[in-house]
Amino acid sequence: MITVAKSAGLSELTERYRKVRAATETACAPLSPEDMVVQSMPEASPAKWHLAHTTWFFETFVLSHSPLGSYRPFHPEYNFLFNSYYEAIGSRHPRAQRGLLTRPSLDEVRKYREHVDRQMMDLLPRLDTADDLIGTIEIGLNHEQQHLELLLTDIKHLLSCNPLRPRYRELPMPGNRAVAPMKWIGFKEGIYTIGHAGNEFSFDNECPRHRVFLDPFEISTRPVSSGEYLAFMDDNSYGRPDLWLADGWSARQRECWQAPLYWERHGDCWYSFTLGGLRAIDAAEPVLHVSFYEADAYTRWAGSRLPTEMEWEVVCLESGARPADSDLFEPPRLHPAPLTGDGTGFYDDVWVWTQSSYSPYPGFKPATGALGEYNGKFMCNQFVLRGGSCLTPRSHLRATYRNFFPPEARWQFTGLRLARSS
Amino acid sequence: MITVAKSAGLSELTERYRKVRAATETACAPLSPEDMVVQSMPEASPAKWHLAHTTWFFETFVLSHSPLGSYRPFHPEYNFLFNSYYEAIGSRHPRAQRGLLTRPSLDEVRKYREHVDRQMMDLLPRLDTADDLIGTIEIGLNHEQQHLELLLTDIKHLLSCNPLRPRYRELPMPGNRAVAPMKWIGFKEGIYTIGHAGNEFSFDNECPRHRVFLDPFEISTRPVSSGEYLAFMDDNSYGRPDLWLADGWSARQRECWQAPLYWERHGDCWYSFTLGGLRAIDAAEPVLHVSFYEADAYTRWAGSRLPTEMEWEVVCLESGARPADSDLFEPPRLHPAPLTGDGTGFYDDVWVWTQSSYSPYPGFKPATGALGEYNGKFMCNQFVLRGGSCLTPRSHLRATYRNFFPPEARWQFTGLRLARSS
Amino acid sequence: MITVAKSAGLSELTERYRKVRAATETACAPLSPEDMVVQSMPEASPAKWHLAHTTWFFETFVLSHSPLGSYRPFHPEYNFLFNSYYEAIGSRHPRAQRGLLTRPSLDEVRKYREHVDRQMMDLLPRLDTADDLIGTIEIGLNHEQQHLELLLTDIKHLLSCNPLRPRYRELPMPGNRAVAPMKWIGFKEGIYTIGHAGNEFSFDNECPRHRVFLDPFEISTRPVSSGEYLAFMDDNSYGRPDLWLADGWSARQRECWQAPLYWERHGDCWYSFTLGGLRAIDAAEPVLHVSFYEADAYTRWAGSRLPTEMEWEVVCLESGARPADSDLFEPPRLHPAPLTGDGTGFYDDVWVWTQSSYSPYPGFKPATGALGEYNGKFMCNQFVLRGGSCLTPRSHLRATYRNFFPPEARWQFTGLRLARSS
Amino acid sequence: MITVAKSAGLSELTERYRKVRAATETACAPLSPEDMVVQSMPEASPAKWHLAHTTWFFETFVLSHSPLGSYRPFHPEYNFLFNSYYEAIGSRHPRAQRGLLTRPSLDEVRKYREHVDRQMMDLLPRLDTADDLIGTIEIGLNHEQQHLELLLTDIKHLLSCNPLRPRYRELPMPGNRAVAPMKWIGFKEGIYTIGHAGNEFSFDNECPRHRVFLDPFEISTRPVSSGEYLAFMDDNSYGRPDLWLADGWSARQRECWQAPLYWERHGDCWYSFTLGGLRAIDAAEPVLHVSFYEADAYTRWAGSRLPTEMEWEVVCLESGARPADSDLFEPPRLHPAPLTGDGTGFYDDVWVWTQSSYSPYPGFKPATGALGEYNGKFMCNQFVLRGGSCLTPRSHLRATYRNFFPPEARWQFTGLRLARSS
Repeated sequence: MITVAKSAGLSELTERYRKVRAATETACAPLSPEDMVVQSMPEASPAKWHLAHTTWFFETFVLSHSPLGSYRPFHPEYNFLFNSYYEAIGSRHPRAQRGLLTRPSLDEVRKYREHVDRQMMDLLPRLDTADDLIGTIEIGLNHEQQHLELLLTDIKHLLSCNPLRPRYRELPMPGNRAVAPMKWIGFKEGIYTIGHAGNEFSFDNECPRHRVFLDPFEISTRPVSSGEYLAFMDDNSYGRPDLWLADGWSARQRECWQAPLYWERHGDCWYSFTLGGLRAIDAAEPVLHVSFYEADAYTRWAGSRLPTEMEWEVVCLESGARPADSDLFEPPRLHPAPLTGDGTGFYDDVWVWTQSSYSPYPGFKPATGALGEYNGKFMCNQFVLRGGSCLTPRSHLRATYRNFFPPEARWQFTGLRLARSS
Repeated sequence: MITVAKSAGLSELTERYRKVRAATETACAPLSPEDMVVQSMPEASPAKWHLAHTTWFFETFVLSHSPLGSYRPFHPEYNFLFNSYYEAIGSRHPRAQRGLLTRPSLDEVRKYREHVDRQMMDLLPRLDTADDLIGTIEIGLNHEQQHLELLLTDIKHLLSCNPLRPRYRELPMPGNRAVAPMKWIGFKEGIYTIGHAGNEFSFDNECPRHRVFLDPFEISTRPVSSGEYLAFMDDNSYGRPDLWLADGWSARQRECWQAPLYWERHGDCWYSFTLGGLRAIDAAEPVLHVSFYEADAYTRWAGSRLPTEMEWEVVCLESGARPADSDLFEPPRLHPAPLTGDGTGFYDDVWVWTQSSYSPYPGFKPATGALGEYNGKFMCNQFVLRGGSCLTPRSHLRATYRNFFPPEARWQFTGLRLARSS
Repeated sequence: MITVAKSAGLSELTERYRKVRAATETACAPLSPEDMVVQSMPEASPAKWHLAHTTWFFETFVLSHSPLGSYRPFHPEYNFLFNSYYEAIGSRHPRAQRGLLTRPSLDEVRKYREHVDRQMMDLLPRLDTADDLIGTIEIGLNHEQQHLELLLTDIKHLLSCNPLRPRYRELPMPGNRAVAPMKWIGFKEGIYTIGHAGNEFSFDNECPRHRVFLDPFEISTRPVSSGEYLAFMDDNSYGRPDLWLADGWSARQRECWQAPLYWERHGDCWYSFTLGGLRAIDAAEPVLHVSFYEADAYTRWAGSRLPTEMEWEVVCLESGARPADSDLFEPPRLHPAPLTGDGTGFYDDVWVWTQSSYSPYPGFKPATGALGEYNGKFMCNQFVLRGGSCLTPRSHLRATYRNFFPPEARWQFTGLRLARSS
Repeated sequence: MITVAKSAGLSELTERYRKVRAATETACAPLSPEDMVVQSMPEASPAKWHLAHTTWFFETFVLSHSPLGSYRPFHPEYNFLFNSYYEAIGSRHPRAQRGLLTRPSLDEVRKYREHVDRQMMDLLPRLDTADDLIGTIEIGLNHEQQHLELLLTDIKHLLSCNPLRPRYRELPMPGNRAVAPMKWIGFKEGIYTIGHAGNEFSFDNECPRHRVFLDPFEISTRPVSSGEYLAFMDDNSYGRPDLWLADGWSARQRECWQAPLYWERHGDCWYSFTLGGLRAIDAAEPVLHVSFYEADAYTRWAGSRLPTEMEWEVVCLESGARPADSDLFEPPRLHPAPLTGDGTGFYDDVWVWTQSSYSPYPGFKPATGALGEYNGKFMCNQFVLRGGSCLTPRSHLRATYRNFFPPEARWQFTGLRLARSS
């Protein structure tokens, strides 16, 4: 069901395994053991937990099925501690209590990683290229890359809770740059084909490839900027229920939202907390850390709407957009770049909310076994995000990729583009 | 924006006004003033509140804009007390506190109804048939019919909370009848046109009419029966997370669901509370009072899926299904009939959950003014129900009608049909 | 254990039974069935429930033990519905759901009362004056009188929740009167004896009579007035944590207290909701509807403290205070009188908070059987109130009476006197 | 107001300062930085926070008032981060979020301690022995000792939450020893004098010394043992509401208590989590980690009651009990010793619950300034504990010491003795 590149040579796969695993560890370099154990909210996980869980994934789904013979788990309790949500694998430690696990220590978790890496290095060259495990290893690598992004968003949240406003890393201050004008690109009505096809890796939720009918529509050439969002705020939009969905208005009142997450006002000026610390809002940057509700309210204020996920995918395919060339394993950039270009790349530095709720494609079949729980069981009460952010690994930037979060979530690097029916 | 039958003669409209208003009052006949004041949960409203709110609707949206001259509201506080959710109309009494309103008394609310009815009777014959108010009156009548259905579901919930298990009304016991076999009807792939068109009344959320592409699919000839649902329960399906969406499984655990709402086990036998009191489950009846989550789990257990709302609408249109002929204003039947027929009518005695989350049609524009809040602002976190139940007024049974409730809601008369991709 | 007046003639007891039961019904005369079914908060009960529960008390503790032979309960479910908290009697309807009981109807509950009254009238003249049941009947009468007071405070709360501000009954407006000056009365150190003794009725929590040592102290000659409390408010006392207990300050912040319960500001003037509707604060009235926390904060602001319950009792005994002569069964006055007198009666129109937490007297033994649950099991997390309010039946005004409520409770008629160590 | 030993030589005070501060750090030796940053529940604090807060205490209440000249705080934000509850000092970081402070790091907090210690070492020898600051330093030392005990109870709670059941330190297993028989010691009625007097240190809540009248009573010669508590459990006492206070029964149901905190059943045997890991219950040990409610229920089951705090103090004074001689600064023992002795020492290895709610002594005056918030504002909704546990520093064991916790608290080393009125 999950299409993997079986033709990839084993040495290439081994090399990727090394790089993906190393990238996770590099991301932890600026963090102390203390930073890595705390859980700042139930939706976030400690960095140490991310380190262990991604390792558990290879242990559970690959090494335990190794053709080399019986694998003995590193520790009898880790299957309980580091299973995230796989009911088929058995009972597990409650999500909201991940931050109580001061043991195993970070050192112990690093030993766990080394142990599993050694075993994987042992296994990888000996696999038959037709072995199903290769597909599982591909999933494991993509899984770890997803967690690398989550690890950074979770750390940003944790550090933001600290009145000392600590930095994850020094970031260069943006220059004073002008934002590109926003234009519209039109697309004709018709039957389009969307969804994943071919030999490249994809998740099960991107399949099957299927046809949709779209009415004519237009999409904006770039995401909404912080400056434009400030104009929305200055127009009292957080005080006007007519701009909001009913649930959005409730959330806004309950949570006392006045601005995107991490924004704070000092005197007459707005600042936002970044992985480089607190700094003044740059009007030329894309707005980020907005919920679906805020994105939706903005579009209503702007006389437009959010695109559907089908529209976004069609835009990408039709426009031939591709992410800028770069080393697939370059470290994530920690903050979005200003919106100075022509914007037609359609891979922005922020995830863009779509108006599509996350649901199965026609004919969707989840992967078999426990991995079938990876995506399918979450197809409810969430909205699809498309594109990718500055934190997203480059190899995850593809037209068919479906990210998803609940409409009130704000701690991911989420922004928006505008659409309208023409 | 809202299409109304302006060609309808005013006398016909007047007659319908009388009948719709009378139907609401007839539904209250078996209830005491005590039954009508209590609110059994935040989602439900007291019957007295329904009586007043539907009246407030005519007062606010029709009489206050009367061409006959300035209308003086019946009571200065009623606009605050009986506004449901219209932000544009102003502040209002909190929804969860509707049950605290022992005053105005039921008698006073009846006087309110009489007052508004007199004014409406005065106005109706004098309207210009081209007056926009006619469209608003149509909405008001449909609105009152929706509330009639809600009133009965809310009363069922209230009575079910009482250990005495009081009856709303004596209901005939079902005979012992065999359920019709379930078959499948197939539909071809293609572009279909759905959504409302023409001069008949519809709500804004049924518009605009638009094209969709559907893959080939099949739908079951009748809803799932109570007997079939029992087999699902007997297969330990409330204990198997693999059958459930993640949010559904959480809801099941949090709410300790073991069966549909109102079902209870005594000894070896299952009973359910009905508007006619507690009685043994009739295996031939459609299962009802299941959440979206339970409906979805059932389909997974049965190797199928829920239909999309587009599929359901196409099925109705293509099969030429129409509700059985009957007086449009006959009183609602209080419990579904057994599934003995061939089932191809597609207007069942239960609302059927679809897998479609409630969202705007392409090009959707909410009605202007405060009535724009009627539907549009709820297009989030809800799922579409199609068809109609035994409580639904006959004139609401149409292929394009979109009902919607959150996935955990169980107190409506909700059941399911099966679909599968072919 | 509970001392009752067994010497009282049976005819006198019968007469009292009639009057106490009639007083409850008189209190309901201004109420509609709707007013009597709703529960405005978990701590309050519907008036209809009070009517039924006090009846259940006689049915359960008297008639079911009748020497006349086996009593058949009026309805098999009422023992479940109307048991308040007696674990020994069996399971019961949850307290917070009393407001869902639209059935039995008020009429049915009135029939229940009549039925039990008839049986009691039958039983009373035939009792042996030495029968233990006489003591239980005494408790039942005192119990019903307590519920009469609760019924009125619960109705006041319910009506206060209604934006229409309905009146329970027309009340005369107070004239403009001067409050008596506050003075101090001193008491010497020494061993005092407190607690109930003798043949008059008392509850078990007033026993046994025992000695306490008191340091010298003084007590104020009258309760704190509304005008004095306004001065406390005007001194920003709701904004100064140093005046409050830590738990009190938390409660104030959580509940956003700015004034006593039922007070509201319109323009420059403070009003309060009374059983006679909303009216301007009368500075000469005792302040009421303050929590223990507010009473405590006031005393700190005033450089004094609350009296202990022992001090209050000693004050009453030593000063020979007695409630003004009156018919024991006169209807309760619905609002406190202004503080114009010399105040040395010590039976004020408000309950006064003491600094004593509610705990057992040395040697305390709860009554045997289920009635042992009447008082003893609540001796935790509550504070003792002494005296009695304008709603309290005159026969309950005695030096040894111990009322008790949690420190955050505000819907009783609670005020305060000042004390200080000398 | 707070009586301190001003005659103590400054060098003795300096020496004690060194030892108390060193004891805190010794207690942290077995802990990793990860162990020290996490907060396992809102009532507990991270070990790192304890280290910083006790340091802040000296900085704020001593160094900032140093006669040596202006003191510059170590870090401008620490006053916000490490103020516990002193409203007079200003706003502060919310208690429930102490576990989010991954920064300052443990290393940084250690530097903070060293900085303040250096300044204190500088100041101490230069103080005038009549300086008020000496009293404040005494409070600071006692305060740090209280936090040492809390630090260990908080760490025990944190480790207990970890499915790996990590040990704080290896503890010797108890031998198999017989518990001493429980006997009663009687005391006569009379006026007794309790409360602190003299030059030794005490907290303000132990004052003033005052007289109380006590009825004759008896107290048990030793605390209740685990074996006795097991008999209580085996008698279905967690299933019998008649043994419990109403609030206790609610807590038991809400929290699903079946045994003391940290007890768990495996097969037929009960184990408890200790600072030395999980081990089988030793029947000869005192029961510990019971709430006030459980202690109270046990006494009712045993036909006795809890002592009042006055009784306990009189017992101590009259029996001439003193804690066994030992170095005042010996490290805390991590688990109670078995109850093998004659038990008349009255300083047990567990705190014993009294039936006295925590309230001010007659004539109580809190300390002036911010330190007046140390004790007084908590005199509500808590119960007094007397004696001291194996974790309590020896110098805190005195007859007048009043510890206090809410009745549902179980994570302190709390047990019980029995009393009865004779």
